[in-house]
Amino acid sequence: MAKFLVTGGAGFIGSHFCDAALSRGHQVLAYDNLETGNKIFLTDALKNSKFQLLEGDIRELEQLSKAAQEFRPDWVIHFAANADVRQGLDRPRRDLDYNTTGTWNVAEAARRSGCSRILFSSTGSVYGEPKIFPTPETCPFPEQTSLYGASKCAGEAILSAYSHGYGMNNTVFRFVSILGPRYSHGHVFDFTHRLRQDPTQLKILGNGKQLKSYLHVFDLMNGLWKVIDAEPKGFQVFNIGHDDALTVDRSVSYIVDELKISPKYNYTGGERGWIGDSPRIQLDCTKLKTLGWKAERSLEQGVRDTVKYLKENSFLFEGVPV
Amino acid sequence: MAKFLVTGGAGFIGSHFCDAALSRGHQVLAYDNLETGNKIFLTDALKNSKFQLLEGDIRELEQLSKAAQEFRPDWVIHFAANADVRQGLDRPRRDLDYNTTGTWNVAEAARRSGCSRILFSSTGSVYGEPKIFPTPETCPFPEQTSLYGASKCAGEAILSAYSHGYGMNNTVFRFVSILGPRYSHGHVFDFTHRLRQDPTQLKILGNGKQLKSYLHVFDLMNGLWKVIDAEPKGFQVFNIGHDDALTVDRSVSYIVDELKISPKYNYTGGERGWIGDSPRIQLDCTKLKTLGWKAERSLEQGVRDTVKYLKENSFLFEGVPV
Repeated sequence: MAKFLVTGGAGFIGSHFCDAALSRGHQVLAYDNLETGNKIFLTDALKNSKFQLLEGDIRELEQLSKAAQEFRPDWVIHFAANADVRQGLDRPRRDLDYNTTGTWNVAEAARRSGCSRILFSSTGSVYGEPKIFPTPETCPFPEQTSLYGASKCAGEAILSAYSHGYGMNNTVFRFVSILGPRYSHGHVFDFTHRLRQDPTQLKILGNGKQLKSYLHVFDLMNGLWKVIDAEPKGFQVFNIGHDDALTVDRSVSYIVDELKISPKYNYTGGERGWIGDSPRIQLDCTKLKTLGWKAERSLEQGVRDTVKYLKENSFLFEGVPV
Repeated sequence: MAKFLVTGGAGFIGSHFCDAALSRGHQVLAYDNLETGNKIFLTDALKNSKFQLLEGDIRELEQLSKAAQEFRPDWVIHFAANADVRQGLDRPRRDLDYNTTGTWNVAEAARRSGCSRILFSSTGSVYGEPKIFPTPETCPFPEQTSLYGASKCAGEAILSAYSHGYGMNNTVFRFVSILGPRYSHGHVFDFTHRLRQDPTQLKILGNGKQLKSYLHVFDLMNGLWKVIDAEPKGFQVFNIGHDDALTVDRSVSYIVDELKISPKYNYTGGERGWIGDSPRIQLDCTKLKTLGWKAERSLEQGVRDTVKYLKENSFLFEGVPV
């Protein structure tokens, strides 16, 4: 049995991680400010005596350090983030505070607690607009095209320096967009939300041709645990995503099919959905596959499972502006 | 005539930039907290009616924004930093506060003031321990081996995202170590300082074989102005350093020759001088050379000029612990 401190443990991905850790018999402390996380995702976990939820913010170093020093985790699994990619330009400080300074706080709190293993949820967005597809971890030094990508790139850099400087074994995962149960932000959420309000039409940002890889959250969990079980040494970076990719148009076709509607589409045009959007994201996951991992769920299944989940859990749309 | 806001304008490199801008007839506002900067470096500048020094800290967003909004610069030249590379592990927050959050503050202050051009002094340390020498700007996505490198890498990422997000034309220079008049930290400073205290022996961190490129501050200035005059569009990255490189041993041989002493050397051993030290730094500066730049001063001249300057300005050693 090991001890896992999970930042963002009440979120979409973090709560699945807590469940998986508990099912393996581990002890879990979820640390979450409940801003985008939701206790409902932890309904099962909260019944488990090996689980504890602490309401706290990664922007508060002392609170986080105190939690880590008392819990003494073997691993810090760092999911807490500002994941609101598109709104970076309207609120440029958020990405810095949550994803960069927040990640520094996580690294420092882990170090102070004597923990030597951090796993960090970074993003394929750190590749900006790469020229190589699928994009390997070792692609040319990328240019950051979004504040979100920049803030996660900075978080990676901090964890790398902490690995080298303090002898920690930190691991960075560069995620594609994740789909599946508890999914509560992103394009499938937005489209489903809007189509429930008005099933006759749908505004699509960009030209619908953006081509992106996704991954089912259960496949993500399998990948994370492959690496945790391997106890990697030093600083490691792994891409994680499906080999397949979907255009926005294809993804929409699955959504409307699940919703049994036929809306008209209004495209805003251009190859990017918004400033900083990457027109294409496909990651080369060879490194992770050498550990025996592969994605087992198709992207179509990922989108359809997500829409089904959202239909059955429409409370997630409450209070969210269309 | 253009208006230049120069952060760290009272520092070693920043003060040379102020002098160069004034000699070209530009208007200059130096913004410096005078923590490592020194008004003595601005003796000439302060006599010029087109020059103004504002004592302020880049960690203070509102103060910096107000200065930028009142001055309305055409360019923000961002030198202010924690340049104390070796002590990162003892004070891990400093690099984040000065070099990452500080750079975000500079980007945001520039944007609020309507300025669309930032030039940033980054470092060859962002390459960590590269496998390609000389290292081009487009080398494989590097791993950060020092908190200093990580914090500057993060600063670069922020400026890149600000370029893409807000239509700014930001330029990053990755500097090697700079030598020449007003040099007031780094290995030539440390060695000269210690040899003045005890000319009989010198402790050398590492095995003396670390191989690094340097650059004379006047050659640096020529490179910066080549790019400023070219008014680059979008986000640009330029390496800047001499093609030649010196081992620590070779550098020491010039220092002791200038000081006319023959100390015994005590090596601490190992290929790195300290944790996070890069055993080899040599940058491929082809991109900058295509603009017509080249280094005109040898590294030997750089080291010797630095020692001569330090001998004539020994006040710089006052209060600095050996």
